[in-house]
Amino acid sequence: MTDFRERIAAAYDTEAFRREGRQLVDTLADYLRQAERGEGLPVLPWAAPAVNVDRFAASFPEEPTGDFAELMASVLSGSNHLHHPRYVGHQVTAPVPLAALCDAVSSLLNNGMAVYEMGPVSTAMERNVLRWMAARLGMPESTDGVLTSGGSLGNLTALLAARQARAGYDAWNDGAHAGPPLAVLVPTTAHYCVSRATRVMGWGSGGVVPVPVDSRFRLRPEALGPALESATRAGRKVIAVVASAGSTATGAFDPLEPVADFCERHGLWFHVDAAHGAAAVLSSEYRHQTRGIDRADSVVWDAHKGLLMPALVTAVLFRDGARSFESFAQEASYLFGNTERPWSDVGLRTMECTKEMMALKLYTCLRVLGTRLFADAVTESYTLARRFAERLSAAPDFDVPVSPDCNIVCFRHTPAHVPPEEWDALQARLRERLVTRGDFYLVQTKLPTGVYLRVTLINPLTTDADLDALMEALRTAARR
Amino acid sequence: MTDFRERIAAAYDTEAFRREGRQLVDTLADYLRQAERGEGLPVLPWAAPAVNVDRFAASFPEEPTGDFAELMASVLSGSNHLHHPRYVGHQVTAPVPLAALCDAVSSLLNNGMAVYEMGPVSTAMERNVLRWMAARLGMPESTDGVLTSGGSLGNLTALLAARQARAGYDAWNDGAHAGPPLAVLVPTTAHYCVSRATRVMGWGSGGVVPVPVDSRFRLRPEALGPALESATRAGRKVIAVVASAGSTATGAFDPLEPVADFCERHGLWFHVDAAHGAAAVLSSEYRHQTRGIDRADSVVWDAHKGLLMPALVTAVLFRDGARSFESFAQEASYLFGNTERPWSDVGLRTMECTKEMMALKLYTCLRVLGTRLFADAVTESYTLARRFAERLSAAPDFDVPVSPDCNIVCFRHTPAHVPPEEWDALQARLRERLVTRGDFYLVQTKLPTGVYLRVTLINPLTTDADLDALMEALRTAARR
Repeated sequence: MTDFRERIAAAYDTEAFRREGRQLVDTLADYLRQAERGEGLPVLPWAAPAVNVDRFAASFPEEPTGDFAELMASVLSGSNHLHHPRYVGHQVTAPVPLAALCDAVSSLLNNGMAVYEMGPVSTAMERNVLRWMAARLGMPESTDGVLTSGGSLGNLTALLAARQARAGYDAWNDGAHAGPPLAVLVPTTAHYCVSRATRVMGWGSGGVVPVPVDSRFRLRPEALGPALESATRAGRKVIAVVASAGSTATGAFDPLEPVADFCERHGLWFHVDAAHGAAAVLSSEYRHQTRGIDRADSVVWDAHKGLLMPALVTAVLFRDGARSFESFAQEASYLFGNTERPWSDVGLRTMECTKEMMALKLYTCLRVLGTRLFADAVTESYTLARRFAERLSAAPDFDVPVSPDCNIVCFRHTPAHVPPEEWDALQARLRERLVTRGDFYLVQTKLPTGVYLRVTLINPLTTDADLDALMEALRTAARR
Repeated sequence: MTDFRERIAAAYDTEAFRREGRQLVDTLADYLRQAERGEGLPVLPWAAPAVNVDRFAASFPEEPTGDFAELMASVLSGSNHLHHPRYVGHQVTAPVPLAALCDAVSSLLNNGMAVYEMGPVSTAMERNVLRWMAARLGMPESTDGVLTSGGSLGNLTALLAARQARAGYDAWNDGAHAGPPLAVLVPTTAHYCVSRATRVMGWGSGGVVPVPVDSRFRLRPEALGPALESATRAGRKVIAVVASAGSTATGAFDPLEPVADFCERHGLWFHVDAAHGAAAVLSSEYRHQTRGIDRADSVVWDAHKGLLMPALVTAVLFRDGARSFESFAQEASYLFGNTERPWSDVGLRTMECTKEMMALKLYTCLRVLGTRLFADAVTESYTLARRFAERLSAAPDFDVPVSPDCNIVCFRHTPAHVPPEEWDALQARLRERLVTRGDFYLVQTKLPTGVYLRVTLINPLTTDADLDALMEALRTAARR
């Protein structure tokens, strides 16, 4: 097989694709059944990085090997099994399986967007999905935005627009030296990507002015004024407040109404990083936690956190849709033909030039599976977290530092036989033991009062019984 | 079906997934056969944005509809068909179909990386794929890097590291005001994302110092010195030179050796945006065009341009691997447990926190399909472009402004019956006619001498006969 045409014909052979595709679907369905039941499968098949680097070595042959099925089997068995009911780790979903099929369609079609012609269907779907999200948030008709590759990039995209709107000069063209150093007021509990975004923009460590939080880890609105004053005294021009809904470590929802009032009073941009918690608006029971989000100038919402989607699909929404064109402002004659700003050439408004057909999976799942599933998933996971926190609080040997606002619960095991000064080390040891054994996948975090275990109940297959088993597993491990 | 558990059981039902998956694979295989043959299928089924916005309306029901197959049929028929042999448009691949299957695996597993535990297999594969790429580029053992979401983000990631290395102060922590405004020397033909990256970082329009190009649209090395001097005189601190391999509009490869010499002489960071052209290193026939790329401090390489992958999978490589940790520098106790910098927690080094299992498709395709396919695809597409340019040049009614360096060809139709002052308008009209009829998908660009048609021969199914047909179609359309 030395001829190029033959090589191409083989690699693009549709019958081989059909054969391999069918076999893969069977393999994935079998895998999924095992993962969902959680039987005979460690949550994480722990192995040191060096082991996997060897196992998946870069030994690429010149000629085809045809060992696709074999390789996929290794990939499946070696990965972290997010559909396992005892996966309760980071804020990454156990995706609804239909979404994975949509991603196969997206990847085969590879309609890269940037300009409308390169993705007519996904461009239209993106617009409609964003409108639906904006309406759920209670944002006005004027709202517009984009989908982008993750919450970190989403927050940067929003803050770039905030910079352009409120710097007091043309930040895009004139640069940072055209005015005083800028800053945003940010609760100390915000995701690291907010500080990262300001440093990317050249604002340095002073670009984030920390706003203290209360005992529930929520931004203290009365601290905004002093923070603004001290930043101003230090020579910073404050342009925005960033609030979280919810925060990463504990899932706390900042009080958005008073922040909106403050921003209005001081002419500041109001940005809400609702990557994790925006989906609460779908739940009649929990949407009250996001009260005031409809007043934000910009909102970030990760569908791969609250909406059962695989990564990455992040919405950045601007209440004044025209602001969406101010994050970036470019000309590229080979790409964007005219000097107008058509909404349909979304590459004008995203960091990405070529992009995935991000909206496809979200649009399709909302339409085929119905919205109730997503609303209920929020309600149930938040309620599950509350029940778990109650059981933990009721137990004499567990400590819950704060009752959960959403589906994130921080807690620690405090058995009587371990002195308090060893509790921090104990949590780390317990986590490592459970994770490396593959019994559970959970994480840990550091709060002002010490090291805590942390679970995100984002997998809808996780039940009360799994969480009871987690408590028992921790007790058992602590006794060793 | 009012109960949540029932809803979840239905949405996560593995047998439904198996059924829908098999059916989808059949649909995709049938689609692919039609697209690859290009029979009875317009390349782009042109419809105005408003038409598709209506067609894919945001009418999401509460309850499941089950019309997945039907919806996917509309998606397939309404999209741009990149596997059609007469798709010769933007630099987006007709992906090798196996890669689409890999993306289904990636999306189902949803191992979001950031920390090793959240993606043990994809983290290992990423490391190995990057090592393989670095070795192909001729970069040293010390090279390390990351995969990220596209070339624009990749170039920003590289330039952030350049800023930290060469600003002369701690740009990350002290911010732009700690020193004079920064700048990079950039050929006038570079992709817009380079200028975008500098504006994101707060350098304004002066952050890019344009370097003139020669008649082949390649950076003129002798212009670097004057550009550096004039920027310095204007109060800018120049930290880097960005070269293209190849540029977007014409695919020109800048002469990298003299740029490397210049950077060495002046202590500047040498970055190569080889998003499109890095794959040339795989071709024994064309790798000479990238001579000097092994001397770069950082290189960006899009696997979704030169390696038949679906978007997005971009490599950012640093010859001094430690620099990879300087693009961003963060602490987040809930995520990155320790204060060391383990290579295996790649979220420390990417804009993305959660990321897709990007390496999976590239690793799998290199291993299963063999490297020769990818090497040959480069050679053949570049050679196809040369043959096309020769036929165009030989024809009295076509004009080729520059012979192609890679698989991008710019040209225009100049029939005797149309006066030269109408040629610009003619190209735009011809393109619109061919594209809206669905006969071909090609694009246009503006060069100093006027408007040109532009093709990227990135689909390995495109043949000489298709390009001959394009010439004929243009002649026919021009006669109307």
